[in-house]
Amino acid sequence: MSIPAQVRELKVWEKLMRKAEDFSRPEKHLRHIIRDKERFKHFSVKGGGIFFDFSRQRLDSSVMPLLFSLAEERNIKARFAAMMKGEKVNNTEKRAALHTASRSFSDKSLYLDGEDVLPEIKRIRQKIRLFSEKVRQGEIRGCSGKRFRHLVVIGIGGSYLGTQFVSRALNAYADREMQIHFLANVDIHNFACVASRIDPESTLWIIISKSYTTAETLANTRQAYAFMEQNGIDPAGHVITVTAKGSPGDDPANPVLASFHMFDFIGGRYSVTSAVGGVPLSLYLGYENFEHFLKGAEEMDLHTLQAPAGENLPMIAALIGIWNNNFLAYPAQGIIPYAEPLADLAAHVQQLYMESNGKSLTAQGEPVGVPTGTIIFGEPGTNAQHSFFQLAHQGRPFPIDFIGVIRPQYEQYGAQSKGVTNHQELWANLISQPEALAVGKEDTENPARSFSGNRPSSTILLEDLSPENVGRLLAFYEHRTVFEAFVWGINPFDQFGVELGKKLAAGVREEMAARNRDVSRSFENTDPISRFYLDSLFSGKITDY
Amino acid sequence: MSIPAQVRELKVWEKLMRKAEDFSRPEKHLRHIIRDKERFKHFSVKGGGIFFDFSRQRLDSSVMPLLFSLAEERNIKARFAAMMKGEKVNNTEKRAALHTASRSFSDKSLYLDGEDVLPEIKRIRQKIRLFSEKVRQGEIRGCSGKRFRHLVVIGIGGSYLGTQFVSRALNAYADREMQIHFLANVDIHNFACVASRIDPESTLWIIISKSYTTAETLANTRQAYAFMEQNGIDPAGHVITVTAKGSPGDDPANPVLASFHMFDFIGGRYSVTSAVGGVPLSLYLGYENFEHFLKGAEEMDLHTLQAPAGENLPMIAALIGIWNNNFLAYPAQGIIPYAEPLADLAAHVQQLYMESNGKSLTAQGEPVGVPTGTIIFGEPGTNAQHSFFQLAHQGRPFPIDFIGVIRPQYEQYGAQSKGVTNHQELWANLISQPEALAVGKEDTENPARSFSGNRPSSTILLEDLSPENVGRLLAFYEHRTVFEAFVWGINPFDQFGVELGKKLAAGVREEMAARNRDVSRSFENTDPISRFYLDSLFSGKITDY
Repeated sequence: MSIPAQVRELKVWEKLMRKAEDFSRPEKHLRHIIRDKERFKHFSVKGGGIFFDFSRQRLDSSVMPLLFSLAEERNIKARFAAMMKGEKVNNTEKRAALHTASRSFSDKSLYLDGEDVLPEIKRIRQKIRLFSEKVRQGEIRGCSGKRFRHLVVIGIGGSYLGTQFVSRALNAYADREMQIHFLANVDIHNFACVASRIDPESTLWIIISKSYTTAETLANTRQAYAFMEQNGIDPAGHVITVTAKGSPGDDPANPVLASFHMFDFIGGRYSVTSAVGGVPLSLYLGYENFEHFLKGAEEMDLHTLQAPAGENLPMIAALIGIWNNNFLAYPAQGIIPYAEPLADLAAHVQQLYMESNGKSLTAQGEPVGVPTGTIIFGEPGTNAQHSFFQLAHQGRPFPIDFIGVIRPQYEQYGAQSKGVTNHQELWANLISQPEALAVGKEDTENPARSFSGNRPSSTILLEDLSPENVGRLLAFYEHRTVFEAFVWGINPFDQFGVELGKKLAAGVREEMAARNRDVSRSFENTDPISRFYLDSLFSGKITDY
Repeated sequence: MSIPAQVRELKVWEKLMRKAEDFSRPEKHLRHIIRDKERFKHFSVKGGGIFFDFSRQRLDSSVMPLLFSLAEERNIKARFAAMMKGEKVNNTEKRAALHTASRSFSDKSLYLDGEDVLPEIKRIRQKIRLFSEKVRQGEIRGCSGKRFRHLVVIGIGGSYLGTQFVSRALNAYADREMQIHFLANVDIHNFACVASRIDPESTLWIIISKSYTTAETLANTRQAYAFMEQNGIDPAGHVITVTAKGSPGDDPANPVLASFHMFDFIGGRYSVTSAVGGVPLSLYLGYENFEHFLKGAEEMDLHTLQAPAGENLPMIAALIGIWNNNFLAYPAQGIIPYAEPLADLAAHVQQLYMESNGKSLTAQGEPVGVPTGTIIFGEPGTNAQHSFFQLAHQGRPFPIDFIGVIRPQYEQYGAQSKGVTNHQELWANLISQPEALAVGKEDTENPARSFSGNRPSSTILLEDLSPENVGRLLAFYEHRTVFEAFVWGINPFDQFGVELGKKLAAGVREEMAARNRDVSRSFENTDPISRFYLDSLFSGKITDY
């Protein structure tokens, strides 16, 4: 597929620029355009099992065709299909990006380098099912015969945030006897907190690292082994690994209870539906729930692959993202779920989106020429209303994704306040905030109480917080992210940007290790700034300089 | 004090604009300017008990004097002194902003409307001390004679985020037998989760609301009372309130175990050092630790009041904030503590800063004329490195506050990986990230591995995570926020921006309550968008439209 090196060279890009100028006119204020009675019907869409309302975005029927033609000129749908078929869309690392295969229940083959990858994916899924059932039924127990009641997930970034998001979203489905703890940060405080909350004899450690060389994960694993040793626990009976075949975590010389493989064709931030999420989530929620979650994600995959542009939720969301970012020039986006169980969604999408789309070069190594990924942040509503929504209403504007859930997980608390239940109160706010942001309100007598409005948002609706719907939501954000990358022509699957810091840290670590070996060693050969920090760390106080 | 209506009319503003242009030249790239051996000495400062390194900000000795002269022309130091003296700096609400008084241990008087406010503040502090000691020593117990072991804090926004930040930062100091739970979100899931974790007979409910009319807090309080009733618990023995004198929460007709007053001269987001934080934190950490925390905050208050501009940490940080925002045009700021216990700092500062400075009008009701508050977001390092730092290094840049802690709270886990302890590994990264961001690295052979650098950051150092240092850090961010507001001439103490949404929600709530009373009622008189959401909520599924 041939794509112009720079998206801004396209004629449609030019047209969209002019259209954006048009939208600065007062007549295009949201308070006017949403008055149209047909507005909601034309700017909302249901698909893949969820609902997407973009009637409060700053666009109209003259904008959407231009965005769709941009999508067409950039071939984004064909590229998505290529991704799902196993083409090496991660060109800088010469890899496929087959996270969709990890939730495929298709009977067809999926060839990558001449080999069908689905049988191995399904074999691992089956292994997860059997292992997690045995643990949950008490057939596999800790060395002293106690049932496993604590899961400690050691992993960082892509081996952590997605699983944390899903386990919190679905904790109403979890076994009440099972607790899950995350050990991501290398800060020893993280380890100490987890250690103080677990019973060593009933703890199963799940170490997740593709390469098994991630510094933080190795350091926490080292602490975990020392802790087991102090408590007389044999790691061979209390540790499982999720890692690439043949990595140091998959070495018979270091026996573990079980090892589950991950593949180089699934990137960390896209790996929740692989063994990375599958192992801890099946242990915590039960394999059946994990499978329902996969099926929801698969449904969204197929919707995204098949639905025409005008009905394609992730594509529309991506094109609105591009419109808001490149044409209306919003530098950030809020994600505000009106559902406390989705409290970690923003942190997951922050990683997914910012690591995927925080690039300045195209996949071919040329400057993109336009701004790429924006900053993603968020907190659940209504909390966010009492926190940073002052700025959303009267400060510099940013677009927001609101997320609503029709049926709550808990129906038994029916007490009413001001004539409504808690869930209704939540929805009164979910309904009102997008409107207040869009419409605003002038107050000429008291300007401090004036609201300029014209602040865009979308609303995503789920019927409930079932595993299926959480899977759909996860896949929705994955595909939206990838579609935006395809418009810009960047590679959303690499992350070379994290390497320089890692490399410099290796040098500093070497300085520290040398000092640990020889306390007389000074840091006088390092630069003055690093030297101050090293001296402060090793002396235990802010040093003079 | 006379201040020009618009800050941009100042000559120094003009000069700073030209200086910012100068900083777009390649010679002003951070990789060059930090080569100066004296750089660190000249662009770092210790004061108020903490250390602030701004050597990696994009400024030099020609910028700082302009920023200081901007501060002088805007009278920000005098305005800060006026604030601390009780002048009505919250002019739109005709109130003082005396959060500094809530941690004052001064023997001098502090008159507000002719009355010394300090004796009452100290009386409440004393009441908190006595009450919390009696609870912690088991003198005050639940109705069935059980000791209180669970604290449930019901409150939202300013009655919640600061206390959550501090309780997490200091949980190493907490009584191991005491658990703290936060019930902020009106989502019933929040209540259900808390209810599943507590023992009703040993639970103390702390209801925090100045007006005692906040919808979310009332709804959760209503659930709590229903829960107590179901469990045969008398609220008079299990509820305490923190509220304004004479509010519905301070009414003898609704007897509670104790009631602590808050004042209209302390705003929610600045109230952590008042009874709002004092009651739950003293119960959780012990009053002595709370007092140490207050003393740290007071030390930073006095530093900020007294230190000359060139040594004044919050003032320098605020001026850098203005420089990055208004002159270098960064729309957001990251807060990245390399300390897991500070994980909730970003959420607290997000509220503190965005609610204070997300305004478009000056305190006099005129347009500010320049962008005001930016977006604040963050996660702890090293987690953030594996999440969104790709964008920080290779996507659109944003300034960052790094925060380091020299001595960890836990010394007993000494296992080493790659020759260093976990705490050293953490610091290897803390030292390397600001450098990598600033310096960058060209890679002409492989452009995907090129780093443009020139990405600014500051680093704040604390010697440890003691209550004093957490108090210092809290006050540092409060004062930095207020100083920026004073430069723009906005009022950082009101929040009219939250009112429109509240008002619309009241209308929607009324519709819902009417429907609860009469199930035959339809929503056909509401606008088509609201109607869809109301129909979906009441039918339990995504309705056709």
